[in-house]
Amino acid sequence: MREGLMMDDHQLSLTAVVERAETLSPDRAVVFRRPDGSVGRTTMGDCARRARRLAGALRELGIGPGDAVGTLLWNQAEHLELYFAVPSMGAVIHTLNPRLAADELGYIAADAEDRVIVVDETLLPVLDSFRSAHELEHVIVVRREASLPDGCLDYEQLVSAGEPLAWSVAPERSAAAMCYTSGTTGRPKGVLYSHRALVLHSLAAALPDAIDVGARDTLLPVVPMFHVNAWGMVYTAALVGAGLVLPGPLLDAVNLLDLLADERVTVTAGVPTVWMAVLAALDAEPGRWDLSALERLMVGGSAVPESLLAGFDRHGLTIVQAWGMTETSPLASACRLPPELDGATDAERYSYRARQGRPAPLIEIRARGEDGELIPWDDEAMGELEVRGPWVARSYHRGRGADRFTDDGWFKTGDVVRIDPGGSLRICDRSKDLVKSGGEWISSVDMENLLMAHEAVAEAAVIAVPDDRWSERPLAVVVLREGRTAGADQLCEHLATGFARWQLPDRFEFVDQIPRTATGKFKKTALREMFAVARS
Amino acid sequence: MREGLMMDDHQLSLTAVVERAETLSPDRAVVFRRPDGSVGRTTMGDCARRARRLAGALRELGIGPGDAVGTLLWNQAEHLELYFAVPSMGAVIHTLNPRLAADELGYIAADAEDRVIVVDETLLPVLDSFRSAHELEHVIVVRREASLPDGCLDYEQLVSAGEPLAWSVAPERSAAAMCYTSGTTGRPKGVLYSHRALVLHSLAAALPDAIDVGARDTLLPVVPMFHVNAWGMVYTAALVGAGLVLPGPLLDAVNLLDLLADERVTVTAGVPTVWMAVLAALDAEPGRWDLSALERLMVGGSAVPESLLAGFDRHGLTIVQAWGMTETSPLASACRLPPELDGATDAERYSYRARQGRPAPLIEIRARGEDGELIPWDDEAMGELEVRGPWVARSYHRGRGADRFTDDGWFKTGDVVRIDPGGSLRICDRSKDLVKSGGEWISSVDMENLLMAHEAVAEAAVIAVPDDRWSERPLAVVVLREGRTAGADQLCEHLATGFARWQLPDRFEFVDQIPRTATGKFKKTALREMFAVARS
Repeated sequence: MREGLMMDDHQLSLTAVVERAETLSPDRAVVFRRPDGSVGRTTMGDCARRARRLAGALRELGIGPGDAVGTLLWNQAEHLELYFAVPSMGAVIHTLNPRLAADELGYIAADAEDRVIVVDETLLPVLDSFRSAHELEHVIVVRREASLPDGCLDYEQLVSAGEPLAWSVAPERSAAAMCYTSGTTGRPKGVLYSHRALVLHSLAAALPDAIDVGARDTLLPVVPMFHVNAWGMVYTAALVGAGLVLPGPLLDAVNLLDLLADERVTVTAGVPTVWMAVLAALDAEPGRWDLSALERLMVGGSAVPESLLAGFDRHGLTIVQAWGMTETSPLASACRLPPELDGATDAERYSYRARQGRPAPLIEIRARGEDGELIPWDDEAMGELEVRGPWVARSYHRGRGADRFTDDGWFKTGDVVRIDPGGSLRICDRSKDLVKSGGEWISSVDMENLLMAHEAVAEAAVIAVPDDRWSERPLAVVVLREGRTAGADQLCEHLATGFARWQLPDRFEFVDQIPRTATGKFKKTALREMFAVARS
Repeated sequence: MREGLMMDDHQLSLTAVVERAETLSPDRAVVFRRPDGSVGRTTMGDCARRARRLAGALRELGIGPGDAVGTLLWNQAEHLELYFAVPSMGAVIHTLNPRLAADELGYIAADAEDRVIVVDETLLPVLDSFRSAHELEHVIVVRREASLPDGCLDYEQLVSAGEPLAWSVAPERSAAAMCYTSGTTGRPKGVLYSHRALVLHSLAAALPDAIDVGARDTLLPVVPMFHVNAWGMVYTAALVGAGLVLPGPLLDAVNLLDLLADERVTVTAGVPTVWMAVLAALDAEPGRWDLSALERLMVGGSAVPESLLAGFDRHGLTIVQAWGMTETSPLASACRLPPELDGATDAERYSYRARQGRPAPLIEIRARGEDGELIPWDDEAMGELEVRGPWVARSYHRGRGADRFTDDGWFKTGDVVRIDPGGSLRICDRSKDLVKSGGEWISSVDMENLLMAHEAVAEAAVIAVPDDRWSERPLAVVVLREGRTAGADQLCEHLATGFARWQLPDRFEFVDQIPRTATGKFKKTALREMFAVARS
């Protein structure tokens, strides 16, 4: 071994990312929509300068290195200031998801040991709902209309009175941010992101085959900043000098489309349900918005139906699917058409684009079948995905969930995948949502996608129900489109185009809506409670 | 401080880059041109598999972790195999520049302690020229036509007989590669690249605002693989899954244009002189080559005249200028038009594109004027550029050249720059080439560029000559275009459009050609020897 002679002690620090935005792209616009619908404007430089004052004020309040600073905020400029200030002062920004249940929020705030929380006035009721569960030393309120509640501090007063703090660079392995997994089973578990992981993630997220971001881009993260670092959109923008458009709490299609058009956004990102609504609005009024600047819609969080890809293609807009988890910072894969498919049929191209794609650089993947052996990359075998890489969690806060990590240092994602020979992932299911019937696996996701391709079906969720003979059998929960009808027999015939007869659901349940989790996914636990009773 | 809980011990290792190419893009083409002009084809996967055998063979020869393996090779598939094999086995690839003088090569091989060298048969005379200066344990010859010289080993025999080596991941701060600066003064100094530095460099080089490389790209590095990691083209291609086209020793315009067209290259890179010749060929036969796939020509190594930018624009091809040094791995800045200039005039846009651009992410810049103070970023003040970042050298091999590093850990580049308010660099001169006249600085580069914009001037170099009264005065060495004439008075009038009267050269020397260094730059030391005699 011979030692390299590079500046290898130069720490990979978010402080450098923040300073870069302040120095090299201070005039880059940060646009934000307030809860009343009005639009405000600031700049990266102003946010970075205010972040120094904010950090000075937090230091005055006793916040020091390693302390957790909670946030209950939308995608808004103040949240950006906290993204800048908290890691740069050596503290840990802990973004709380206001859509979680009160008891979960209380548990999370206590588990993270949040010393202070910054809350938007519109979210004060959420804070009140769990405040008894954990004693916060300070509550800082971002106000526009509300009066300052007793015992709370005013965000703007703190910023204007704060002495600008000189940043010091934290060791790269120290914690910068924290986010809890919104697990559908068990208590949420905390992921502690290091500076090193988030800097590397920001570089990887900006790559052409990932989100593809440069200084010419303007990013609109629909994905909330309380949800896994807003998929890296925020720090990536600061790193490369892109602009940011923050939509606040108004995530309906018209408000989003107005912002996308007015601010000439080039890249946006969110879960499929958001884009389904946007597509419906575009289809209804095709000429209303000038989206000529918009190059990419990044979609993640759950599988993207091909109909969504084709729908946006009709409007000249490209959806790119990505995959990741709270534990992977989150970007772990993205789906870009490989050059070999340039001459392929539309069907082949859509089929490929519906995948979750190839792992990001420095991320390694493998998957294990039911027998515990690694599956071949033949796009046939199904296995639970395991990942490894510099922005993947090595453990949870307080050592919880140790069974999610292998002895040789890989994270077990709980996602069941097929992998093609080129290393491109196709998520078949969450491990716990698979239907394990007669020793074979049936992918609930595949079945849902085919059901949703039926003209009468608006939404479909497939769950496993216990079965004495087959161990489990699939059950389909279906929401029909308004004014359309379809019976179980017809849907079974439709499914038979993609599934073997023995795989078809024995039961169909028709409902008005499918319950959703705090992050917008189908809440299968609730469906199982409602329907998963073994047939007598 | 709170510890992050990510996989922060996951080493940033070139081994992961090589394994990624082997696993995720094994079928990606590697095309190479042989010295006889014929074109061969292999794949990333084959090169990676052969690299394991090559490493096994090198291990058998006694090469272990930290040992230096020298190369005297062109841009050819075997060089790629060594780029893959040597760092992945924990050894250090030391690329020698065959254009250097024999005594320099001998000094370098000894200084690096090369234990073995791999040499192309066409470069055996170069090896012979310095072999007496340093005892090599083994000489391995890449053969096509030549017979195997006595006492040498055959590359292909080693690869086919080698036992594939299982890679082990080296600590990220260990040395992976080595390259010597071809300093125009003093002995060359060795730069030892760590795995960490080169992995981070590969990520940064692939970014949209740098070289902008994804799996859909095919890269043709004209810049030699013996020259600062081929500007990152090789490892970047492996990291993101791009294809590679290696032009061998035939770097004339027609051979390059044939490869660019036939292989549908998307990105290429080289020094300005290469592109000047290519432009002349394109201008001569505009319809001959289909370059519709070609998106970018990266240019670095010396300043790019605006005429070159405009010349390629005429053919629908975009030149992007980048800046770096052996000590910066090399990519430290690249010039992309900022969105503010989208509506600017052609002149403003060309003027901006002639800059060296903004620092890459994680690279910091500053510059010091003659008084030792940091200069403002006003695009007026000139100062010597200092850089800092994770892929910048912290020292040279054996501690030489310590005066090139500041006490607070920055590298002094020796380049004199102006910096604009957006952080974009403009190289005005090498520090030692500046003309320091009457307490003011005159940029030799600015003066050369203006001279070369004169229709009668083919090439121009400006040097400082000692002057009793003014300390130094500029002297212009000019090569006229064939069939054109221009006298000192005319050229002075032309220069007066951009320079103050007191800055104009007192002397013009007209020559047939300007001597060049081994890397194709004007050899100003030779010019100073020829002309820099104070006027009596």
